[in-house]
Amino acid sequence: MTLRDRVHSAVNGTRFQRLVVAVIVVNAVVLGCETSTALTAAHGDLLAGLDRAALAFFTAELAARLYAHRARFFHDPWNVFDLLVVSVSLLPAAGPLSVVRSLRVLRALRLVSVVPSMRRVVTALVRSVPGLLSLTGLLVLVLYVGSVVAVNLFRASGDPRFADLGATVLTLFQITTGDGWSDVMRDLMVTHPLAWVFFLAYLLVGTFTMLNLFIAVVCSAMESEAPRPAPDHVLLDEVRALREEVRALRLDPVGDRR
Amino acid sequence: MTLRDRVHSAVNGTRFQRLVVAVIVVNAVVLGCETSTALTAAHGDLLAGLDRAALAFFTAELAARLYAHRARFFHDPWNVFDLLVVSVSLLPAAGPLSVVRSLRVLRALRLVSVVPSMRRVVTALVRSVPGLLSLTGLLVLVLYVGSVVAVNLFRASGDPRFADLGATVLTLFQITTGDGWSDVMRDLMVTHPLAWVFFLAYLLVGTFTMLNLFIAVVCSAMESEAPRPAPDHVLLDEVRALREEVRALRLDPVGDRR
Amino acid sequence: MTLRDRVHSAVNGTRFQRLVVAVIVVNAVVLGCETSTALTAAHGDLLAGLDRAALAFFTAELAARLYAHRARFFHDPWNVFDLLVVSVSLLPAAGPLSVVRSLRVLRALRLVSVVPSMRRVVTALVRSVPGLLSLTGLLVLVLYVGSVVAVNLFRASGDPRFADLGATVLTLFQITTGDGWSDVMRDLMVTHPLAWVFFLAYLLVGTFTMLNLFIAVVCSAMESEAPRPAPDHVLLDEVRALREEVRALRLDPVGDRR
Amino acid sequence: MTLRDRVHSAVNGTRFQRLVVAVIVVNAVVLGCETSTALTAAHGDLLAGLDRAALAFFTAELAARLYAHRARFFHDPWNVFDLLVVSVSLLPAAGPLSVVRSLRVLRALRLVSVVPSMRRVVTALVRSVPGLLSLTGLLVLVLYVGSVVAVNLFRASGDPRFADLGATVLTLFQITTGDGWSDVMRDLMVTHPLAWVFFLAYLLVGTFTMLNLFIAVVCSAMESEAPRPAPDHVLLDEVRALREEVRALRLDPVGDRR
Repeated sequence: MTLRDRVHSAVNGTRFQRLVVAVIVVNAVVLGCETSTALTAAHGDLLAGLDRAALAFFTAELAARLYAHRARFFHDPWNVFDLLVVSVSLLPAAGPLSVVRSLRVLRALRLVSVVPSMRRVVTALVRSVPGLLSLTGLLVLVLYVGSVVAVNLFRASGDPRFADLGATVLTLFQITTGDGWSDVMRDLMVTHPLAWVFFLAYLLVGTFTMLNLFIAVVCSAMESEAPRPAPDHVLLDEVRALREEVRALRLDPVGDRR
Repeated sequence: MTLRDRVHSAVNGTRFQRLVVAVIVVNAVVLGCETSTALTAAHGDLLAGLDRAALAFFTAELAARLYAHRARFFHDPWNVFDLLVVSVSLLPAAGPLSVVRSLRVLRALRLVSVVPSMRRVVTALVRSVPGLLSLTGLLVLVLYVGSVVAVNLFRASGDPRFADLGATVLTLFQITTGDGWSDVMRDLMVTHPLAWVFFLAYLLVGTFTMLNLFIAVVCSAMESEAPRPAPDHVLLDEVRALREEVRALRLDPVGDRR
Repeated sequence: MTLRDRVHSAVNGTRFQRLVVAVIVVNAVVLGCETSTALTAAHGDLLAGLDRAALAFFTAELAARLYAHRARFFHDPWNVFDLLVVSVSLLPAAGPLSVVRSLRVLRALRLVSVVPSMRRVVTALVRSVPGLLSLTGLLVLVLYVGSVVAVNLFRASGDPRFADLGATVLTLFQITTGDGWSDVMRDLMVTHPLAWVFFLAYLLVGTFTMLNLFIAVVCSAMESEAPRPAPDHVLLDEVRALREEVRALRLDPVGDRR
Repeated sequence: MTLRDRVHSAVNGTRFQRLVVAVIVVNAVVLGCETSTALTAAHGDLLAGLDRAALAFFTAELAARLYAHRARFFHDPWNVFDLLVVSVSLLPAAGPLSVVRSLRVLRALRLVSVVPSMRRVVTALVRSVPGLLSLTGLLVLVLYVGSVVAVNLFRASGDPRFADLGATVLTLFQITTGDGWSDVMRDLMVTHPLAWVFFLAYLLVGTFTMLNLFIAVVCSAMESEAPRPAPDHVLLDEVRALREEVRALRLDPVGDRR
């Protein structure tokens, strides 16, 4: 048994997996605590130390798995996910990259890659995405075309929600989700009394597309979950008994029962 | 017939069940009336008396059922539910426990455990919960990770909705339900013009997960409701008639019809 | 052919049905025009005259149908619906009954009872109602219990949305539909910082019940729309051919083919 | 090979299709850029030139396709769609027709008619529309009747959302989509304390109809997507084998196996 084999079995053992889950949870709690100014003031060094320890553990774990699986490591997309999520935390976090520092908590998403039941759920979700591309593309097209029309029609109103193309795209996306669309329309109708024509047309086309996108999600989710219908057993048993009887008839067509 | 048998048949009789339903409804109405200051001022003693009488009735009823069923009483989760709901009302309700006093009305939920059709509906609802645990766990994880990211990014804005981790979790939960998400975003974009990037990403991931959670509810509800497809009777009758004919052929293969 | 027969065939003729549809539509437009103060000032007498003429026509039509069908008239619930809707308009509309006057436009709903395709749709909708009663009852119970708890907990906040039981029921119904629940919660959390516990619990139970009510609507709608799966024709043809062959075997078991 | 044949094969070639897609995308981006005052100030002539070039290209392309297909051009509804969308841009856009100018970006929707996967999606969406007509008609009827009732009841409140029939129809449509219905109701309840009766009744009827309209969309979408259930192969194979056996029995009923 080589060193590689030993590392391999250690890394894939149940105990080690549990340890990884524990470190992920502790690390997530630590990163949550670090958002509290009171806790950071009192125990800042401890929290930072725990975070650095967790990061060191994750780096070592990934290195071990990389060593054990070699190039096959990259065949499993979950490994690539783990690598990305841990790498983000290794980036320097000063200056313009302070956003990156906020993303350290994405490490907690490793819970998904480690807990099998969550892994299954997310795999199912991700698998339903390709079937949605055409409808998503259509929605983006409707959103873009609607926004160019809206910004040309309503820019003169002085409403900041229609100030430029970017703001208008955001506003129409908001309308597509149905959140507060009537407020937007009523504000516009002060200067553009016919704005309701645009809103009605956009709502009909946009939410109809959105609704069909949702239905496509439902369909693909159900398809993957629904078991194939079982063959009809009552009927099948009946036919099999019949065939047995015919076979008996062939082998002994006339005689013995007389 | 022992006393226990007699209590058992009395407690499970239709008449007694109807009496229990009547007491529950009257008690619920009384507790509703007690919320009105005008009614409490005029008939406070009467209402309090009725409530105490109902509580005494429920306590006696549960004692009788406990006596009749002995240890088996605890095998039915609905009995445990009844016991909990009645026990809450027996707690002293002074001082810090005034919240407990508010929970007395939970007794009205006993209606569910007494009316069979409601019992079936709630049993079906509760049964669909275990299948939702993985997705709920995923949603909680997404909510937590999103909140830690959001509080780090947006705390500096001074918006009370992102003041600490708790407030941020509530805000992101609000956004996941789609209620007023655009107001939250627009307020933030005054100080953080790129806030829309976070909101778009979170909305896509969060509501996609939420939507799939809903679909899982639908699937499990439909599965439990949908009857197994009936066997195809036309076909089955045809096959059975055929088998009858073959049997006749075996018993009388050549002769009598000639 | 008696007078009754002649009235019967006249009332059920296609031409007469079309006339009824035309009168309903014209009457609906007239009642719409009467809501405009400008139009009422200019052509008030004409509009009132048209409305009275339509009402007279409907009364005569119903009387003719009642004469033609006699007691069987009341067997069709749509006839009862027509009678109710027309009777409302015959009530005196002065003083406290001015609300009744507003209900005259319900006559336009007669369009549903006259146009067959709409009649089918509404019949399907109404038929799905009984299956929803248990869940609706549960929702009402959850709403009532939640409201009694909420009014006891939050009345002290001085928020008019929790001033008494009636206002609280309305507020919780609003929360169940998901409209602006976060505003209600945030306003309360100023005086009751733990209000989110109640809102989270209520949202989970209430919207979960609501969602299952929706699913029940979907299920019953699909059940009534989905055609029974057709018998499997390939298989059925195969079995019938087989039976034919066995019958041939019985009638001519040994000989003629030799 | 005539000129018409050559134009026909050129117009339907893969290369040419890709060129059309490229021009559509570039044109959409140009029209998006033209909404920016900064970009128009700096490169207005270039953008206008590109737009005119794209329009010329589309006109030439349509003329070529019209020449190649002759009258059959109008048999494909997508061709008619392309023609309409391009014609809009050829209209003079001065004065009262400035709205038409805003509609130039509808040309980007030609992407749908050119990309096959989007074409399929939109065809499926459009095909589901006829099945929705009865329910949509019912919804419009409910909306109209509800609005006439509401404007009569609530006009006196002075709320601009119930000022005339048009405003009321818009308000009730907003309520049917569930957006901010509680704000509308609470504002009205200041002057009309019983307004909640109308809102509850309208919400029940309106959203129940809306929900069933959604379900009808779902049903028709699923129907068109779901494959017919495959015949039950286990059973079919069994029956065919049986038939084979019976045929063997007929051809050789008594003898050879002995």
